[in-house]
Amino acid sequence: MVMPVRGYAAHSATSALGLFSFVRRDPRPNDVAIEIEFAGVCHSDLHTVRGDWGVPRYPVVPGHEIIGRVTAVGADVTRFTVGQRVGVGCMVDSCQHCPACAQGLEQYCENGMTGTYNDVDRQDGTSTQGGYSERIVVSEQFVVNVPEHLDPAGAAPLLCAGITTWSPLRHWKVGPGSKVAVVGLGGLGHMALKLAKAMGAEVTLFSRSPGKEADAQRLGASHVVISTDPAQMKAVRGQFDLIIDTVPYVHELNPYVSTLAVSGTLVLVGYLGPLEEMLNTAPMVMGRKSVAGSVIGGIAETQEMLDFCGQHGITADIERIDIGSINDAYERMLKSDVKYRFVIDIASFQGAA
Amino acid sequence: MVMPVRGYAAHSATSALGLFSFVRRDPRPNDVAIEIEFAGVCHSDLHTVRGDWGVPRYPVVPGHEIIGRVTAVGADVTRFTVGQRVGVGCMVDSCQHCPACAQGLEQYCENGMTGTYNDVDRQDGTSTQGGYSERIVVSEQFVVNVPEHLDPAGAAPLLCAGITTWSPLRHWKVGPGSKVAVVGLGGLGHMALKLAKAMGAEVTLFSRSPGKEADAQRLGASHVVISTDPAQMKAVRGQFDLIIDTVPYVHELNPYVSTLAVSGTLVLVGYLGPLEEMLNTAPMVMGRKSVAGSVIGGIAETQEMLDFCGQHGITADIERIDIGSINDAYERMLKSDVKYRFVIDIASFQGAA
Ligand SMILES: [Zn+2]
Ligand SMILES: [Zn+2]
Ligand SMILES: [Zn+2]
Ligand SMILES: [Zn+2]
Repeated sequence: MVMPVRGYAAHSATSALGLFSFVRRDPRPNDVAIEIEFAGVCHSDLHTVRGDWGVPRYPVVPGHEIIGRVTAVGADVTRFTVGQRVGVGCMVDSCQHCPACAQGLEQYCENGMTGTYNDVDRQDGTSTQGGYSERIVVSEQFVVNVPEHLDPAGAAPLLCAGITTWSPLRHWKVGPGSKVAVVGLGGLGHMALKLAKAMGAEVTLFSRSPGKEADAQRLGASHVVISTDPAQMKAVRGQFDLIIDTVPYVHELNPYVSTLAVSGTLVLVGYLGPLEEMLNTAPMVMGRKSVAGSVIGGIAETQEMLDFCGQHGITADIERIDIGSINDAYERMLKSDVKYRFVIDIASFQGAA
Repeated sequence: MVMPVRGYAAHSATSALGLFSFVRRDPRPNDVAIEIEFAGVCHSDLHTVRGDWGVPRYPVVPGHEIIGRVTAVGADVTRFTVGQRVGVGCMVDSCQHCPACAQGLEQYCENGMTGTYNDVDRQDGTSTQGGYSERIVVSEQFVVNVPEHLDPAGAAPLLCAGITTWSPLRHWKVGPGSKVAVVGLGGLGHMALKLAKAMGAEVTLFSRSPGKEADAQRLGASHVVISTDPAQMKAVRGQFDLIIDTVPYVHELNPYVSTLAVSGTLVLVGYLGPLEEMLNTAPMVMGRKSVAGSVIGGIAETQEMLDFCGQHGITADIERIDIGSINDAYERMLKSDVKYRFVIDIASFQGAA
């Protein structure tokens, strides 16, 4: 028995997303069936469906910032009950036995984690399909509890933008007394500001252009540094213990490295690819500085992040849209015209054509 | 009252080092006067006197791997007594009040540490002169105790090559169960093998050419990987928690980054300058990998390293030379023709012309 479900799918790199009917599997013993309430819209969704990262497995139903309610659980499920509000992020499976998985770092699974969409189910070989859809069925190990009092639409982006910034903040041990800087104020950047501030850090936003001071301060930044102003950059030399760099395209790192304190780390969470500049190792050697990368986070730390957000009342700043507006939302996202994340109200599938 | 002393100095970038008479200051209340027994020969000595890093303050008496015996102490000195065997490394002073100094990281002093040679004394403005000389006078805070049972000639290179590799091994928490790789088998590399092995790590040497297996194993390596052999490099993908990269010239890092384990770090200790390659951030992001730098180590950790070497009977593998052979030694060093460090027997000043 399988579950019919409606989603919005891309069928090629150039076609608009449109209504698509498909099936979800009948829950296995360790599966949780979820009725989706909200799905955040991540830049990865757009990159994937447009083929920016290679030809995907069309049709693709994107979406990996998923919030919903449990409608059924398999016989072996112990941690979830019907009616509970839950979340699903970027992964729905991993090998569960490699050193990374054993450390709870499923995102770095040596055998490859299974993506929430555009990937292949490890057990039945079917294509995974994401959160722009009415329902999803996911193994218990990849489902997290979402605090009931958080706004579910605002909580959706925590599953990707939130955990992507939380994981490096925790790994590099940010807390009271830490000085953290965030490069870029988009979906990731605005979450980094909120989370770093709530962790007790003094937070600075690096921005290429002025005009973001009011928003940055509301989101948690104590300072805004205009990165194109040499005097402002010089004034923060040697300041930061951790820089969360959310810029999604190739950019120069040397100017930011110079603002790291001794033993500081710049961690890239937005850009994958070759650096065009010549990274200068001299300031790294002479100040024990690191340039690092990080992607999303493990399931246990995703739960930890959601619990923290529950305690601190943190959600993303979002713009709620109907599923019928997704193609327009993509165009606006390409122009960075969103503060700071689109979230699809899945109830809008009721009237979708 | 000042102390006349003989050294070997460079007077220009192109002249050979030769005998040079100068004076050491009368010990200040917190100074230790040291009769030098041995001085290691570091690549930095050669780079400095030849002007590779800018025009130095000629005449320059190089040498920052210094072992000797205390001959006098100032009135306020508490930790050293006449006759004690001591060491002096790359620094003889720092500001003592910046955040780096406060953490015992004098090598990263925000106001600039004072180099053992080719630098300016913070109190009297005189030029500092290094260990290719009969005596030196150094503030107590920058003198370390050398375990009496260690061979003093072999201990000399611990003060630069030893601490330069010890500091990152400790900072990145190497211990039993760690997998460490070392790139390059020279003065730094051979110390990295010995120290990492003694700390309990499983150690691998990356070498560009075969023929180093026997030496590498004797020094502590369990494995040798020929870095120019793609099959061997592929076989160690994702293996290492820490790579100590001692290569002193520009080289590609991407092939080594691919051999880091999840959350691993490659730390440059030999090369300062721009990377010519395009560092690829994708494997860094997708494996939470870091590229970092590190230089020498603080005074407290230098003492810790010497105590560790005392407990484990670790010294450098050296070739002992007379001061009159220093210019020939430089030529051989340029050809990497030394296993693994030249150390000057300062008693040879007796017959020096
Ligand atoms: Zn995402
Ligand atoms: Zn795994
Ligand atoms: Zn040196
Ligand atoms: Zn200082």
